[in-house]
Amino acid sequence: MRRTRFDNSQCPIARTSDLLGDWWTPLVLREFFYGRHRFDEFTEALGISRAVLSQRLKRLEAEGIIESRQYQERPPRNEYRLTQKGKALWDVVAAMWRFGEDWLFADEGIEVELIDRRTGEVIHPLMIDEATGEPLSLRDTRLHFKSTAAR
Amino acid sequence: MRRTRFDNSQCPIARTSDLLGDWWTPLVLREFFYGRHRFDEFTEALGISRAVLSQRLKRLEAEGIIESRQYQERPPRNEYRLTQKGKALWDVVAAMWRFGEDWLFADEGIEVELIDRRTGEVIHPLMIDEATGEPLSLRDTRLHFKSTAAR
Repeated sequence: MRRTRFDNSQCPIARTSDLLGDWWTPLVLREFFYGRHRFDEFTEALGISRAVLSQRLKRLEAEGIIESRQYQERPPRNEYRLTQKGKALWDVVAAMWRFGEDWLFADEGIEVELIDRRTGEVIHPLMIDEATGEPLSLRDTRLHFKSTAAR
Repeated sequence: MRRTRFDNSQCPIARTSDLLGDWWTPLVLREFFYGRHRFDEFTEALGISRAVLSQRLKRLEAEGIIESRQYQERPPRNEYRLTQKGKALWDVVAAMWRFGEDWLFADEGIEVELIDRRTGEVIHPLMIDEATGEPLSLRDTRLHFKSTAAR
């Protein structure tokens, strides 16, 4: 038995990692955020092969992250929309945004920023504990087994 | 010119995606959170091959996410610690936790939970806008180019 109890079936991180765990999936999700919804828009924007994109979209649809809808009959063309579950993934992508913004640009400027559509103010995503409203602290967090019987 | 302006060099999501973008990297990061620091602990916990693990740790070290330190001389053995940059990645992993917890367990129970070490209360990570304190909303967020000249 070489696997820990924190395997795919019991760890939320593992399951989300499995879903996001290739270079293209978060970037395809990003494209929805950028307002793109169509296959050709994605290939154009990402420089991704049609075969790889098709495979990623199928996975996202099978997982209930996106839905496809025909917007043209002849020839048949589909566009894609984020489901509620897909929109929830925005928080993960936003956390990636914040980390990248803080740590991966060093001396360079970043040419893009997130803006609140209602106020025009810049948005800086921050992870907090919903109960206390305090920023998350790795130091103050520990993992707990709900059932000791399961150990 | 088939690439968008939101390419690797200018999008924080793209850069973080590139860093996290394989199935193992978030799980290796998770192991630090679970209090593991040593090569053999990682292989034992993850069932990952030594070659793949070694490659992932080298990448994380080169990126300044972890540091290695010798803890035994004969035979030489290293352990790994998260840097400040590595600790900042916890927010991304925490966002993955929350999404997985909310959307990937359906009817099953989850056997693990995050606990505040100081209070014993359950932690639910939440993404907010640092400026307003409000939960992020995909609908109210848009992307902005700082410099129109760069377009």
